[in-house]
Amino acid sequence: MSQAFYQNYKLGILGGGQLGKMLIQSAMDYNVDISILDPDANAPCKNIAAEFNIGKLTDFDTVYEFGKECDLVTIEIENVNTQALKKLREEGVKVFPQPEVIELIQDKRLQKQFYKENDIPTSPFILTDTKEDVLSNADFLPAVNKLGKEGYDGRGVQIIRTESDLSKAFEAPSLLEKLVDFETEISVIVARSEKGEVRTFPSVELSYHPVHNLVEFLFAPSTISEEIEKKAQDLAIDVITKLDMVGLLAVEMFVTKSGEVLVNEVAPRPHNSGHQTIEANFTSQYEQHLRAILDMPLGDTQALIPSIMVNLLGEDGYQGLAEYEGLDEVLSISGVNVHLYGKKITKPFRKMGHVTLVGHDTATLKENARFVKENLKIVSK
Amino acid sequence: MSQAFYQNYKLGILGGGQLGKMLIQSAMDYNVDISILDPDANAPCKNIAAEFNIGKLTDFDTVYEFGKECDLVTIEIENVNTQALKKLREEGVKVFPQPEVIELIQDKRLQKQFYKENDIPTSPFILTDTKEDVLSNADFLPAVNKLGKEGYDGRGVQIIRTESDLSKAFEAPSLLEKLVDFETEISVIVARSEKGEVRTFPSVELSYHPVHNLVEFLFAPSTISEEIEKKAQDLAIDVITKLDMVGLLAVEMFVTKSGEVLVNEVAPRPHNSGHQTIEANFTSQYEQHLRAILDMPLGDTQALIPSIMVNLLGEDGYQGLAEYEGLDEVLSISGVNVHLYGKKITKPFRKMGHVTLVGHDTATLKENARFVKENLKIVSK
Repeated sequence: MSQAFYQNYKLGILGGGQLGKMLIQSAMDYNVDISILDPDANAPCKNIAAEFNIGKLTDFDTVYEFGKECDLVTIEIENVNTQALKKLREEGVKVFPQPEVIELIQDKRLQKQFYKENDIPTSPFILTDTKEDVLSNADFLPAVNKLGKEGYDGRGVQIIRTESDLSKAFEAPSLLEKLVDFETEISVIVARSEKGEVRTFPSVELSYHPVHNLVEFLFAPSTISEEIEKKAQDLAIDVITKLDMVGLLAVEMFVTKSGEVLVNEVAPRPHNSGHQTIEANFTSQYEQHLRAILDMPLGDTQALIPSIMVNLLGEDGYQGLAEYEGLDEVLSISGVNVHLYGKKITKPFRKMGHVTLVGHDTATLKENARFVKENLKIVSK
Repeated sequence: MSQAFYQNYKLGILGGGQLGKMLIQSAMDYNVDISILDPDANAPCKNIAAEFNIGKLTDFDTVYEFGKECDLVTIEIENVNTQALKKLREEGVKVFPQPEVIELIQDKRLQKQFYKENDIPTSPFILTDTKEDVLSNADFLPAVNKLGKEGYDGRGVQIIRTESDLSKAFEAPSLLEKLVDFETEISVIVARSEKGEVRTFPSVELSYHPVHNLVEFLFAPSTISEEIEKKAQDLAIDVITKLDMVGLLAVEMFVTKSGEVLVNEVAPRPHNSGHQTIEANFTSQYEQHLRAILDMPLGDTQALIPSIMVNLLGEDGYQGLAEYEGLDEVLSISGVNVHLYGKKITKPFRKMGHVTLVGHDTATLKENARFVKENLKIVSK
């Protein structure tokens, strides 16, 4: 690592949301000055970054002018202008993850084709360009119809179980993926540094909200067998290596009833499925991302203690200045770690924070996680 | 806790050094905007606070004007203007710890008298006003001569073992304390909230640099017996209760060879002897301080895992722009957590950072701590 790093080293992050915020919390331990670019003047990072710039992440000039002042640029969201990142790289600014990786992941169609071409197990799929294309593949159902671009947090995804659901199909370039009858959904976060060191975190198990397609609980460790764990770990390493990527990659996977492990989607940045590593692992995903992109040795990923992460979503039916109900009750529980993201405005199902519960007894942990879910509410008066 | 807290709640901190920095890292999880006052334009908090004000902490007007804009004012250093804090409190700003507690602790003579008057066990002492006073108490040796005010980090303290050391005595209001022939030096951090909830952290054991009177290593848990631990915990609770203090108090104690526990000194704020709680305990001392002063329920203080904290001091013989040698070697060790405070300039023995090592095997931990001490150097070219 360059010795210059410690004086006036500037790391630019595209995006100033909660992931950027937690990345700053971690970067504070390494003297790195952080410069943020975000379109929202009230983004969570607004008060804690050395520099906070307001601007569009998809605009070439905005991203280029921002990046020119940085030694290294990284992302906390994929929807950014990669042309500007390529130009910055040509001009000597380090960019991790690489712009080509971001482009591949921005488009779920390219992502799926990459898996296919590189022998990475994934569910069968068909590329569709119109609603008509979907309709003509009724024999492929039950399936999931996903927009190629700009799907996010449950948007741009439709489950098409039977022909009666076909009216929901997207009239745009999409994927039609065979619905996987999975046993468990897991995530493995893997990091790779510039000098090629690779380390995976233990897998975690995701539990989705039945309606809103957002992670509601996350369990670490997952309950999968050692054999499946090994498969999942190897698969995560395989994906990041084949992507030739530097940085942190969250690999979401399905474990099927027959014990297959299939890659669902990946994200080349700190991820919702790694929040619990802040308290529950030797190294957090945020520090690991920094270590990877700053070419430091990667950290030990072992868990210290079992954990459950609960996403705090804006309560349905409330929109406006955020208020928090039940916080004192929740803070009275041992092992509760509350993270409020500092978003001014709450909206139904908006990610407003998360709680990580740690503890040695799994039954108590589950009971406490349920209590948090039921008692901590984000509302507006 | 006030619901207003979550929108535009401003916490002012007097001092913007490393303790302030780690307090901000913790406060980020609760949406609290932090405003810092520090005389140094390059203080560690300069880039991470919502507001960073440059000004003298001992100046009445500066502290008053700063505090007027805050909902709550706290400290990360004791040497502040307490008259301004009293006026702020009269005008409705919350001030924790209370100005009277800060005043008592600013003056080691008052502190000692407080222990005596309140039946808190401490080493015998004599108040001295001049060097002559010290000289006339040669029969009290071996003793420690401490300046009443403004001693800090090993300054303002002289060990007077024999009459030949008497020339070092202070020509100012001081204390002459009987030198305690202690077995172990420990610290217990205790928190007390506005509603009177009290919680202690497990004791830690301090190991001082033999020459510079600065903590070199800190071991958690300490090696004292359960019986002594109980005594130390009770004593910490007794001190904070008798001080009627709200906030966090670090109580440094001597354990004598006959099993007595004596209070040495206290600090009413997060403390060097609690850094390891960030990684090694359910709740960190920084979060506990916030919970106490914001009147939230106090957190569980249990340790998750054994730890050793190593202070990173500026290497002797170097002064100037700080550079870090051996960081990659140290970061390759499992369980290493590096905290660089972001001080631009290094000086001999300046506190530039710390490393917390966590691990289940104590022998390995000690070996690794020694490696960190020997290999991570802060120098200047």
